[in-house]
Amino acid sequence: MEKTGVALVGMGTVGAGAAKLLLDQGDRTARHAGRTLWLTHVVVQDAKKARNIDLPNGVLTDDLQVLLDDESVKVVAQLVGGIEPARTIMLQLLESGKDVVTANKALLAEHGPELFDRARQLGRSIAFEASVAGGIPIVANISQCLSANQIQSIRGILNGTSNYIISRMDRDGADFATALASAQELGFAEPDPTMDIDGSDAAQKLAILAHLAFGARINWQDFPRRGIDSVDSTDIEYARRLGYRIKLIAYARLLPVGLQLVVAPMLVKQGKPLAEVRENFNALSIVGDAVGPVFFHGQGAGQMPTASAVVADMIDTAVGRTKITFKTLELWSDGHARVDIAPPGELMGRFYMRFDVMDTPGVLGQIAGRLGKHGISIASVYQHEPDPDKRQTVPVVIVTHRASEADASRAIKQIAELPTVGDQPERFRILD
Amino acid sequence: MEKTGVALVGMGTVGAGAAKLLLDQGDRTARHAGRTLWLTHVVVQDAKKARNIDLPNGVLTDDLQVLLDDESVKVVAQLVGGIEPARTIMLQLLESGKDVVTANKALLAEHGPELFDRARQLGRSIAFEASVAGGIPIVANISQCLSANQIQSIRGILNGTSNYIISRMDRDGADFATALASAQELGFAEPDPTMDIDGSDAAQKLAILAHLAFGARINWQDFPRRGIDSVDSTDIEYARRLGYRIKLIAYARLLPVGLQLVVAPMLVKQGKPLAEVRENFNALSIVGDAVGPVFFHGQGAGQMPTASAVVADMIDTAVGRTKITFKTLELWSDGHARVDIAPPGELMGRFYMRFDVMDTPGVLGQIAGRLGKHGISIASVYQHEPDPDKRQTVPVVIVTHRASEADASRAIKQIAELPTVGDQPERFRILD
Repeated sequence: MEKTGVALVGMGTVGAGAAKLLLDQGDRTARHAGRTLWLTHVVVQDAKKARNIDLPNGVLTDDLQVLLDDESVKVVAQLVGGIEPARTIMLQLLESGKDVVTANKALLAEHGPELFDRARQLGRSIAFEASVAGGIPIVANISQCLSANQIQSIRGILNGTSNYIISRMDRDGADFATALASAQELGFAEPDPTMDIDGSDAAQKLAILAHLAFGARINWQDFPRRGIDSVDSTDIEYARRLGYRIKLIAYARLLPVGLQLVVAPMLVKQGKPLAEVRENFNALSIVGDAVGPVFFHGQGAGQMPTASAVVADMIDTAVGRTKITFKTLELWSDGHARVDIAPPGELMGRFYMRFDVMDTPGVLGQIAGRLGKHGISIASVYQHEPDPDKRQTVPVVIVTHRASEADASRAIKQIAELPTVGDQPERFRILD
Repeated sequence: MEKTGVALVGMGTVGAGAAKLLLDQGDRTARHAGRTLWLTHVVVQDAKKARNIDLPNGVLTDDLQVLLDDESVKVVAQLVGGIEPARTIMLQLLESGKDVVTANKALLAEHGPELFDRARQLGRSIAFEASVAGGIPIVANISQCLSANQIQSIRGILNGTSNYIISRMDRDGADFATALASAQELGFAEPDPTMDIDGSDAAQKLAILAHLAFGARINWQDFPRRGIDSVDSTDIEYARRLGYRIKLIAYARLLPVGLQLVVAPMLVKQGKPLAEVRENFNALSIVGDAVGPVFFHGQGAGQMPTASAVVADMIDTAVGRTKITFKTLELWSDGHARVDIAPPGELMGRFYMRFDVMDTPGVLGQIAGRLGKHGISIASVYQHEPDPDKRQTVPVVIVTHRASEADASRAIKQIAELPTVGDQPERFRILD
């Protein structure tokens, strides 16, 4: 059987998983690739460090140049995280004639255009299934399986850490800090969880998907983004009573005014599939104009699910499918973006609003009046009895009918100026 | 831009949908294919019949030979249903040098080996995403996106007609005949629904998936199959009270004793994703050893969802990806089957059993005794009070712990021989 030399750069969790699949399941990969994927090099920073995995003699090296010089190696999975040296390694690999597979979404979100252009110039390819939603093969599904569709919307839970934390808050009534600590203890959150909990990680993934689905060339920092770190357990509780769950949603929707993109905690109606995504799972609901709604659910991270995506990409690259896809799709090419970004203020939606108000007569009327002045009508109201042990304010929770972002913002601002209303109102979108 | 000639044979619902996508969305397909897919021929039986779709002049023909002779046409979607003349047309297309796309699962289930072997001999390819689960791209996901995995199990709702009928029975308490009539009225069931409601359609699809996922070469008639036509609304009601829904499940699982394959109505725990699949939707839960569980949900039939799969396959074929996949996977090749089919009797599972018993003392003890004699222990029992208006029997519903199929069958047979027990006990598996 034909042999294709393959290599890994980086031997963290995912790298070790990919090595296991390549070494222990050689028959399987050979069956799907029609050739043996022969692991020849694993390049690491420190070749002397103790590792959990037995590699064949001579495979482990800390000399990238050895790999770059080995012309028998055609496919390399670049699994170093962060921006540098990952970016430089990626360019070196492409320049030495390797096709590259990567799981590094931050690198693609920051330097996608540069890397993809360089790969095209050199006649090479980059595969990146593992960069979004781990084990869920969403990149292939959007760019290939659903290619007869104009994708109309993407609603995703793309950050497992956030979903784990917010599910804990919902289930146990835990506050954010407690749920985060528990997630860290169980390994579902990094020691520094900033990129996960502030929505950056989900925004990077959404930027990649928006490029695939809509041809949008947009930096992940250029659309509205809010993480779960600002979600109060009070709102999770009220949302539940109203029949919703709060989830961190990555949202993209093609509208006549342009493409709407946002990452934010939103209220999702209980019973809808996205509301029921538990623990650290990821899920996506994608609507195509021909296929209608398609829903995907699976492990969005973790050693073997991510390695599953990496090795599938290595197989696709070895057999030549990636080259075709990469060439035809012209990802991140210099061509004009196919869609404009919609002006955020014009976007319509329903909102959950919470005001802390003085327990005096007439407040609800004042709030309703100011909402009405901006054309916002109320779908439901939930007003709590005052807690005798606490300060003399009560929360008023309002779910609105459809209104524009701009109107909702203006109304909330004016309501917060009322002397009877606290100056820190809360607001979430309700997922449509 | 480069042009690839494409054609359709058959212009029913799906054919008209595919024609619409090719004609109205040419820019889109060109963007994904890197070339224009140029619809040159639509071959039908009767070219004079009035149709809902405007085709360009000269495209419609009732002469297949014109298409066979046109060397500029490389990709043909063969959308004629049934076995003949579909099989002959397929062979003629392959022999005249066309790569073929099809949605005809019955043809593949019956003649897959012959057609695939012929395609291979001729250096041609067959793509068949649309043959299973309509708009859900499950063929590509199993054979390509999850290729780093050993698939361990498939649990699917693959027949939308059955799911619509049984959902109606569950929601409205309708009996089978009423629900079927309503499905026919709404177009969710064919005038002759036999293949859908007796489980044949789901079994054909499962046979195709089992081949892709496990390398099993098995005829769809060679594993246990039961449809929803035998499901009594009584059992749907009891199942609901016990916390389950009855769904028609296509089930494949790799076990140490071999591959278990079955299509049958089973009890699915409420809240599990497969239990919540409504209307005519399809869904699959697939477990891979690396990726873990992945869940897919979408439209399993209908004009545009199926056309979405057909046109995606035409794009894949035009760009060359199908050729690679077809060649490396060696589907239905003469090689040995990679798995044996497990002996049905040895398979373990939990069961729902319903006995109609005389309302006399000691019956439950007798039933429990006979179950116990076969090593079957009882997880829960539901016994109804007798209905004073009806005959003097009462249903006893039992949910068992794990037991083998053989033991369950023997125990049920012996229980039905008791003079106090009716001779038509009911039994369903509980989905694990």
